[in-house]
Amino acid sequence: MLGPRVWASVRPELSKALSKKMRGWASGEGRKIDIAGIYPPVTTPFTATAEVDYGKLEENLHKLGTFPFRGFVVQGSNGEFPFLTSSERLQVVSCVRQAMPKDKLLLAGSGCESTQATVEMTLSMAQVGADAVMVVTPCYYRGRMSSAALIHHYTKVADLSPIPVVLYSVPANTGLDLPVDAVVTLSQHPNIVGIKDSGGDVTRLGLIVHKTRRQDFQVLAGSAGFLLAAYALGAVGGVCALANVLGAQVCQLERLCLTGQWEDAQKLQHRLLEPNTASTDQLWLMVVWEIEPVTSETQA
Amino acid sequence: MLGPRVWASVRPELSKALSKKMRGWASGEGRKIDIAGIYPPVTTPFTATAEVDYGKLEENLHKLGTFPFRGFVVQGSNGEFPFLTSSERLQVVSCVRQAMPKDKLLLAGSGCESTQATVEMTLSMAQVGADAVMVVTPCYYRGRMSSAALIHHYTKVADLSPIPVVLYSVPANTGLDLPVDAVVTLSQHPNIVGIKDSGGDVTRLGLIVHKTRRQDFQVLAGSAGFLLAAYALGAVGGVCALANVLGAQVCQLERLCLTGQWEDAQKLQHRLLEPNTASTDQLWLMVVWEIEPVTSETQA
Amino acid sequence: MLGPRVWASVRPELSKALSKKMRGWASGEGRKIDIAGIYPPVTTPFTATAEVDYGKLEENLHKLGTFPFRGFVVQGSNGEFPFLTSSERLQVVSCVRQAMPKDKLLLAGSGCESTQATVEMTLSMAQVGADAVMVVTPCYYRGRMSSAALIHHYTKVADLSPIPVVLYSVPANTGLDLPVDAVVTLSQHPNIVGIKDSGGDVTRLGLIVHKTRRQDFQVLAGSAGFLLAAYALGAVGGVCALANVLGAQVCQLERLCLTGQWEDAQKLQHRLLEPNTASTDQLWLMVVWEIEPVTSETQA
Amino acid sequence: MLGPRVWASVRPELSKALSKKMRGWASGEGRKIDIAGIYPPVTTPFTATAEVDYGKLEENLHKLGTFPFRGFVVQGSNGEFPFLTSSERLQVVSCVRQAMPKDKLLLAGSGCESTQATVEMTLSMAQVGADAVMVVTPCYYRGRMSSAALIHHYTKVADLSPIPVVLYSVPANTGLDLPVDAVVTLSQHPNIVGIKDSGGDVTRLGLIVHKTRRQDFQVLAGSAGFLLAAYALGAVGGVCALANVLGAQVCQLERLCLTGQWEDAQKLQHRLLEPNTASTDQLWLMVVWEIEPVTSETQA
Repeated sequence: MLGPRVWASVRPELSKALSKKMRGWASGEGRKIDIAGIYPPVTTPFTATAEVDYGKLEENLHKLGTFPFRGFVVQGSNGEFPFLTSSERLQVVSCVRQAMPKDKLLLAGSGCESTQATVEMTLSMAQVGADAVMVVTPCYYRGRMSSAALIHHYTKVADLSPIPVVLYSVPANTGLDLPVDAVVTLSQHPNIVGIKDSGGDVTRLGLIVHKTRRQDFQVLAGSAGFLLAAYALGAVGGVCALANVLGAQVCQLERLCLTGQWEDAQKLQHRLLEPNTASTDQLWLMVVWEIEPVTSETQA
Repeated sequence: MLGPRVWASVRPELSKALSKKMRGWASGEGRKIDIAGIYPPVTTPFTATAEVDYGKLEENLHKLGTFPFRGFVVQGSNGEFPFLTSSERLQVVSCVRQAMPKDKLLLAGSGCESTQATVEMTLSMAQVGADAVMVVTPCYYRGRMSSAALIHHYTKVADLSPIPVVLYSVPANTGLDLPVDAVVTLSQHPNIVGIKDSGGDVTRLGLIVHKTRRQDFQVLAGSAGFLLAAYALGAVGGVCALANVLGAQVCQLERLCLTGQWEDAQKLQHRLLEPNTASTDQLWLMVVWEIEPVTSETQA
Repeated sequence: MLGPRVWASVRPELSKALSKKMRGWASGEGRKIDIAGIYPPVTTPFTATAEVDYGKLEENLHKLGTFPFRGFVVQGSNGEFPFLTSSERLQVVSCVRQAMPKDKLLLAGSGCESTQATVEMTLSMAQVGADAVMVVTPCYYRGRMSSAALIHHYTKVADLSPIPVVLYSVPANTGLDLPVDAVVTLSQHPNIVGIKDSGGDVTRLGLIVHKTRRQDFQVLAGSAGFLLAAYALGAVGGVCALANVLGAQVCQLERLCLTGQWEDAQKLQHRLLEPNTASTDQLWLMVVWEIEPVTSETQA
Repeated sequence: MLGPRVWASVRPELSKALSKKMRGWASGEGRKIDIAGIYPPVTTPFTATAEVDYGKLEENLHKLGTFPFRGFVVQGSNGEFPFLTSSERLQVVSCVRQAMPKDKLLLAGSGCESTQATVEMTLSMAQVGADAVMVVTPCYYRGRMSSAALIHHYTKVADLSPIPVVLYSVPANTGLDLPVDAVVTLSQHPNIVGIKDSGGDVTRLGLIVHKTRRQDFQVLAGSAGFLLAAYALGAVGGVCALANVLGAQVCQLERLCLTGQWEDAQKLQHRLLEPNTASTDQLWLMVVWEIEPVTSETQA
């Protein structure tokens, strides 16, 4: 069982090839992009015969394009990446790139179990137009996923990625929290620009913001459920499933937080809590909760 | 195994006796007290021979009395109530009552595994001067602690308590979260005034605030680690171990939140995160972290 | 928070007093009792007014006395010890002592959260007639319950107990496994004679048997669900809730295992699995499952 | 998020294609193979440049071929399947098929997150020579993996697989136990022949054996740690990482259990417990524990 070798290193030949490609890519070393803002994690629609429904996908993108999002997360947990083939993952990202407004960011999920597969997927994601990749923690062998192993994995990916890397910790799916000390170490990498944290532990989130304050490193909340709290602690945005159905409201919550209207923000956050639980659990039912209209008063 | 009977009902004779006593107590029905503010959970000092050190306890109280706390929590998890006998628990509360300023609130932990023991301890706590009791969830038979069972338990205690009851959920110790639906139901009881929630899940905390908004029901954060986030979501205070060592700072964080100075609040919250972790883990070492002095700027 | 002192040491005066009493008790040092066999964990019956029903308790004991048990466990998890007062715990043990056959062993649960309370309860249990005490792991501060802390706790209790001590690990209730290394260390104490392990992990159980093979140390399974497996790995008996309702069958399973009739044992074990689940979950309903009659063939 | 469609159904066209192929395969409907026996889960060796080392793999197979195993498990957790590409997974199985003795069984891991990918991989595994597939539970969306969802998944796979299917439950990796009721339902499928259960809960294991006793359904233990216990409860073999390093001993333990030599079996099981822990944790270090020689006495 030489496993550690597999995820801890990248085959030399590939590594060489990648280095060349990176040069061609006008490597973004040192150039950290600003990822602050709200992102809906785009869902992947399917046809009646269970093929990816690209027509519906474009349609959804056009609707979502009307909201003041910072961009789109494609092939995150919400996009059901584990159910797609590698080529489908890429085609979906490519389709979104075409359909979405040019001024938005496209964050593409490129995480795989092995470092090598993640590097390859990352490279491909860059080629089909992703602005940055979001890399979930490997998790099948969670018992072996020490801080050191995770730091090694992400460092390798970030070293070889032609586009910036966003860490992604989602313990509800992976059974694994990316440890704070690993996040702090990784925040110093010139090609790692932030983390999407879906765990909902704001003490941890605040600690990450605080301990990475001397780096260009940004924290995104992984759910609308703790978006206000995340802003209050220094996060700069969120990847919120709820934004797929209540895009205006989630963007308004962002605005209220950014402009320091905390009382109105609290009211709106409260009103979003139950729909958020529903969206996380059963977004596919598209049960749109009856949200009271956003009043001019809270519109500011 | 007729267990449910034990925690689900109170022996009739005791019940009768208690009703009488309650009348003598000018029962507080309907009169809900305001528990908003910061509380240090008072630790129990011991002598070299492992007896409770009442001299040291008074001394601590005098020091703590100089901070603008709303009151004191006595015999919470931090007071190591599981290590004291019933009479020691009462004597400690009695001692604190004498030593503390008259205008502060005394919240006393009276939770036991059985409903009956909790009722008896609650009555005794009232007799030695507690203003309200804080009742931890029973937990040894956590597999049986359904919402219905917990609602029954707390209703019985609140029915018979001469003083207001504060719910107490601390999953790190009990392995059990008091379910949100149970909290909402219990918030309607005239003698239940709030909850101390130590779980740190602010989505849950916001949901509790939101769903109990039509009741006189107040939420206290169970740690300084998520105090700012809790305020941002509508909590009214906190029971913070850290307040035992950094009382001024925790009270200042409260003030910044209450006056809407969120930026300064964020800075101060960040600075308190690491000392807070230390205080939760190893307060007994009394390693006082080097907190930068509170500047006049953030003093407001 | 000087807590560790509370559970890590016993007040000197008590300690002295106990030493004297121990001398009076003709201390059993070195004299290890044999605890091999089957034990029903006796339930505590209650009257309609929620008092302990001593009449019913005696009646139960007389019924249970007809089976070839090695003895009785009193005030274990099944006896709902957390719901009784200290004096009730002792009175129940005293009542069982009177009602039970003289040649059986009485193992009494004496575990409390603090070392001191456990020592006091242990002493009292010995005074009312227990042959040995079964001491559950303290668990409220499970985060602090390191191997070292648990070894210290049990060593203190065993040092001062006039009767042999049986360790008791029941993670479903305590959220805590007594670590194997702690068990191995404690097995060397002259007054610690065994462990009741309710976790159901037979690899662990086999490891404990194996690593304590050079000590006088015996392992009891904590449930009929893995009784056969436990015997197969070297356990010498079991404390089985199921024995309260299917005493003959559990004793027969013991006999089949002891006489190496593994095929019949397997058949009987299989037939007991579903009733066992029921007895653990809902023994209080006393739903006696329809067990096919024990055939003469398997009666051996 | 139409996810359920993805894993709950297979695209019609593929389904049709598969049905045709199955006819060509002389579909094994009704023909259940006997999987009783010991299997080493073959590890995947890598070269210094992190490519699969097929030479080393063949060499390992030749060594393993000298032991009386029932067959080999390829691309299980121990084979690090999550780190290989689809084509590498197939090539490894193909290589093992060539290198291994003709009379042994080859069980190939074909589990993927989606039903469709699992069906495709299963078909391919059959084409490269697998005798049966072992299908791990999907787990990334474990919150949605109800019994119904899992039954649907496995039924689809078994319906379309040209070779028998073995269920595979490994909660340490997946955070998910395949529920007993789902196993019982699936045991009635003509193309599902058994389960490899790595959880180590022998009460559960016994319950599965008992509740599927009227089906042609076999249970394999997922570790040498509870192999004896599993046999004692009616399992028919094991997939044991330890068999890679101590093949003779694990096969001897099988023989002792099958011939009813339980005392010797217990001794041998005990001696294998610590090496087994080591092999599970750190087999890659190939620290071969000093096992005392198997004596003629236990050789039977």
